[in-house]
Amino acid sequence: MTPDTATDAEQTSRIAAAWKKQGLSIALVPTMGYLHEGHISLIRRARRENDRLIASIFVNPRQFSPSEDLAAYPRNLERDLEICRNEGVDLVFTPGPEQMYPQGFQTNVSVENLSGGLCGASRPGHFTGVCTVVCKLFNITGADRAYFGQKDAQQLAVIKRMVRDLNMGVEIIGCPIVREADGLAKSSRNSYLNTQEREAALCLSRALAKAGDEIAAGVTEAAAVSAAMRAVLDAQILARTDYIVVVDPDSLEPVPVIGAKALIALAVFIGSTRLIDNMLIER
Amino acid sequence: MTPDTATDAEQTSRIAAAWKKQGLSIALVPTMGYLHEGHISLIRRARRENDRLIASIFVNPRQFSPSEDLAAYPRNLERDLEICRNEGVDLVFTPGPEQMYPQGFQTNVSVENLSGGLCGASRPGHFTGVCTVVCKLFNITGADRAYFGQKDAQQLAVIKRMVRDLNMGVEIIGCPIVREADGLAKSSRNSYLNTQEREAALCLSRALAKAGDEIAAGVTEAAAVSAAMRAVLDAQILARTDYIVVVDPDSLEPVPVIGAKALIALAVFIGSTRLIDNMLIER
Repeated sequence: MTPDTATDAEQTSRIAAAWKKQGLSIALVPTMGYLHEGHISLIRRARRENDRLIASIFVNPRQFSPSEDLAAYPRNLERDLEICRNEGVDLVFTPGPEQMYPQGFQTNVSVENLSGGLCGASRPGHFTGVCTVVCKLFNITGADRAYFGQKDAQQLAVIKRMVRDLNMGVEIIGCPIVREADGLAKSSRNSYLNTQEREAALCLSRALAKAGDEIAAGVTEAAAVSAAMRAVLDAQILARTDYIVVVDPDSLEPVPVIGAKALIALAVFIGSTRLIDNMLIER
Repeated sequence: MTPDTATDAEQTSRIAAAWKKQGLSIALVPTMGYLHEGHISLIRRARRENDRLIASIFVNPRQFSPSEDLAAYPRNLERDLEICRNEGVDLVFTPGPEQMYPQGFQTNVSVENLSGGLCGASRPGHFTGVCTVVCKLFNITGADRAYFGQKDAQQLAVIKRMVRDLNMGVEIIGCPIVREADGLAKSSRNSYLNTQEREAALCLSRALAKAGDEIAAGVTEAAAVSAAMRAVLDAQILARTDYIVVVDPDSLEPVPVIGAKALIALAVFIGSTRLIDNMLIER
């Protein structure tokens, strides 16, 4: 049996409202589809922790800039629905862009400071597109809990801030990065990589491993850790570093000396594919 | 007995959630306080149409620009609470600015096109401040219906658009303008007027009455109607016209020829006090 699917926001709201009326808790796992083990880890945790589970599959045009890969973004709805069925998703919401952004649409939700640096610097407008669609999805589903991957660490910080600032009644749960056996963080965009690039892409997780080694060896200056990471990336000829940062995971403000809590994050172009990865230091 | 009051968003949410659980419908009347008969008309309609009624009183700093009258804005909480008690309000939410915008607050909700013209032209950022606070109030109260005065016609159009665009589950109800016996639209800002200015302020409702006369006489060109209104305003030496528009009430796009539906709106400075008024044509 395939899970119920809905392309219509009002239909989805009605189904979710009926669940609410029965006192059932509702989880949302918002995705852009082309599901991989990272998404599946979110779905499994959401499945365990809630009575009803909605997954959304929507390649959100408003979070792509004109120069980005909207048209090329990988899609496989049939396979995604099969995964959702196997994982016990109750409802898959698969709207089209005209359903989410009908004629005359003109509202934006934006989180100012957190959206500016890191990925926001090279992807202007990206997080406003993310916040706007996520706000819509929260309102449509009335979710009690929503699950996001820690891989998009800035996205997670931005969404937590939006929820807090706008008094949204949804709990945001960040879930650990899922990796390939060789260390590459799972991402739908990994499908863009050719064999050579796939090998080169290991420099991201290797740079993070290097950072971990340095910190384990007692290094605490963020500049020294960043430099060690940069050396790893510079050694990879197919890699072009976008950023390496050591920041507070909530405020995304630079952390000059690594103490109890830090987020080490990087973005690297491998050929024309932009990949991100990160590591949370909590001690 | 005074109505229950809450300054705390979480407390308000808990009370509202308990009502929801009992299947009770919840109305919100959001105000900046200094309640007048216009507000009271909203409260009375909301009282009739819903099981529970929340009024909020919050002079929202984010909808005032630095040059505007935030500090001078009139306040009288004791009298407001007495009115709420007399009108059967169940809960008055009276947060402080630090409760609504704690340290680190940085999220905005904005409605692009509708916020630009009319009052938005002379009050940049105003409607973003309005949308952000109204979004918060909707989320805090979980209101099923919210009541706004038609006097702020642009605000009403902007909020309806926001609710639709972001799939907020709240019904927006616009209520007719309430006027003084001589025609002046009720407004908290009328308290700024001295005796001479109070007399001069009648030019707004007189200009609208003139527009009504012209239309009744068969005039349909918006330009002709606007010119007749401008003549009324120009005759008042204490008045300085900000704008006169004939627009669609939903899109706020200019309506060159008045047909079945139009909003005739104006903003006029009387001395240093900016007043607005409008008339809906529906036929």
